[in-house]
Amino acid sequence: MVHNYSAGPCILPQEVLQKASESVRELEGSGLSLIEISHRSKDFVNIMERARSLVKEILNVPDGYTVLFLQGGASLGFYMSAINYMKKNGGRSAYLDTGSWSSKAIKEAKLLGEAHVVASSKDDNFTHIPKDWSVPTGADYFHCTSNNTIFGTQMKSFPKTDIPVLCDMSSDIFSKEINVADFDLIYAGAQKNMGPAGTTVYIAKKESLGKTGRDIPSMLDLLVHDSKDSMFNTPPVFSVYVSMLTLEWLKGIGGIKEIEARNNAKAELIYGEIDRNPLFSGTTAVEDRSTMNATFVLNDEGAHREMFDAMWNEAQINGLKGHRSVGGYRASMYNALPLESVQVLVDVMKELERKA
Amino acid sequence: MVHNYSAGPCILPQEVLQKASESVRELEGSGLSLIEISHRSKDFVNIMERARSLVKEILNVPDGYTVLFLQGGASLGFYMSAINYMKKNGGRSAYLDTGSWSSKAIKEAKLLGEAHVVASSKDDNFTHIPKDWSVPTGADYFHCTSNNTIFGTQMKSFPKTDIPVLCDMSSDIFSKEINVADFDLIYAGAQKNMGPAGTTVYIAKKESLGKTGRDIPSMLDLLVHDSKDSMFNTPPVFSVYVSMLTLEWLKGIGGIKEIEARNNAKAELIYGEIDRNPLFSGTTAVEDRSTMNATFVLNDEGAHREMFDAMWNEAQINGLKGHRSVGGYRASMYNALPLESVQVLVDVMKELERKA
Repeated sequence: MVHNYSAGPCILPQEVLQKASESVRELEGSGLSLIEISHRSKDFVNIMERARSLVKEILNVPDGYTVLFLQGGASLGFYMSAINYMKKNGGRSAYLDTGSWSSKAIKEAKLLGEAHVVASSKDDNFTHIPKDWSVPTGADYFHCTSNNTIFGTQMKSFPKTDIPVLCDMSSDIFSKEINVADFDLIYAGAQKNMGPAGTTVYIAKKESLGKTGRDIPSMLDLLVHDSKDSMFNTPPVFSVYVSMLTLEWLKGIGGIKEIEARNNAKAELIYGEIDRNPLFSGTTAVEDRSTMNATFVLNDEGAHREMFDAMWNEAQINGLKGHRSVGGYRASMYNALPLESVQVLVDVMKELERKA
Repeated sequence: MVHNYSAGPCILPQEVLQKASESVRELEGSGLSLIEISHRSKDFVNIMERARSLVKEILNVPDGYTVLFLQGGASLGFYMSAINYMKKNGGRSAYLDTGSWSSKAIKEAKLLGEAHVVASSKDDNFTHIPKDWSVPTGADYFHCTSNNTIFGTQMKSFPKTDIPVLCDMSSDIFSKEINVADFDLIYAGAQKNMGPAGTTVYIAKKESLGKTGRDIPSMLDLLVHDSKDSMFNTPPVFSVYVSMLTLEWLKGIGGIKEIEARNNAKAELIYGEIDRNPLFSGTTAVEDRSTMNATFVLNDEGAHREMFDAMWNEAQINGLKGHRSVGGYRASMYNALPLESVQVLVDVMKELERKA
């Protein structure tokens, strides 16, 4: 068995992969593959509606919000979030800069208006989440990134403010309880906890849309997509379907409460070992540690790197290498990664200590 | 066996569906599913490069062009094509209006500058391709739609002009020989002849990019995607993979020459019957008939519709209903539809004539 620590696209539940594989061959007795039916067929419209409704149910999305399955990843979301909320005349926005993804979002917003950075941990190589900042009154919106895959930090709380709060939750959506009402827009690429690459979920408060005075290109306009029930154009059929299956799986195991408990157990196990084992150090501020991506380094790379790399490869661990911009190691522990896989890694770390 | 006339997403080769299904379970002995591996892994980078190179090989793409697999469908392509070619200052473009998709493209271009319509068949409900028009000199680019799925018309030639020619080839790319050098940009949603929904291919002449004076949002900038070898952000892994398989299949059966002969044979068979059978009429100008989508009506709907609908349903024909904006019938005969399926439909039409 491979222990899949890929940072995304990443591990999905085995039963989801099996069902998806079957449906690519034939969608439940239809005589046709999932990927050769019309997206306007009853079969697919039902899939889209089921996926949208599972998001609402699992995250307890309040009335007045729309759920959309679009394309382009969070990378297009950086621009889409800005263009749907930045006023055309004298547009001003506020960003918290917590890592590479935040920085990219800020870059896109600057094409449309002012993007004020309320705080940044860039000088500290993003190893912590900035504290002691405030959201400026009068900005069109505030934007943040809930979890920083590359650096391994995670926001543990979000500001209460009168202006719209927009959040890129690509790498920790569906991992823990959130209060959707705290946000005007949540967007997230599917390829961590929700499904395969190729679709991006948007959860938007309808009454905060359409206020910019801009003519927005149709495909970037959240109101256009909402008016067509997320079927303005041909959706990414396969990615929406597998997201639906993954959300069914999540609901089936007990929903957010259960997955949050499992994710906390995995995080405690790995961080416990990082802190205990004299050969390793965590790379982020302890209070900002991500439950999704644990980043750590060997204290003596020269002495132990070769041995450690050989050992975890031998143990069938996949994808543990840190992001090229950080180095070291990163254990991505998305929803579908079992506690057993974390135990295998911890056992390898203990074994290294004994052997080294 | 189902005879799949879906207008898109549509029929794909059986061997492609089988292989795709297997790879969702496990990608060739990797121990992991195709959809849970990193897009930066060697396995997926090879898939992306193979898909890009098959496009070049099959369409005989000249040097100096880039091939990109992006997201958003042609619907995002309408805006992307415009923003990559319309000058920031005094931008002027020229469009041929041949149907719903052209009209949507024109709408998006108008957000960026002037969009001059050189000719339109709208007053004739788009039942023909306009003749006797010319491309204005001095426009930033000329845009057209090569095949009109809804109305069943197809451009049989393209203008020779000094300004960049941009073409939405979503519904007939890979169906017949084209001279890529006649175009500065070809874009096409995958879900007709190339693969499943969820990716869009762009074939762009590199030297004609970056000339607008605009700051283009990163995800909409073809130069940005080219600079990252179509991996600027996480690509739609599954859709790119299945496109690669479909292109392998196309190459395997003999490439464009062979598929063009097959498509011509299918078109001759169906149009021959439409013209011969006194119960049916074609809906488009004969010289503009699409080899991909044959649109036709019953001459006496009241007398024969119920019987005809029952008969083709009985014959396991799927997706023959015309688009809601046109009515009647539409036989979409994309690359993977075998001649045998067209023969089944023709036999049903003959039988209706005998029974009616």
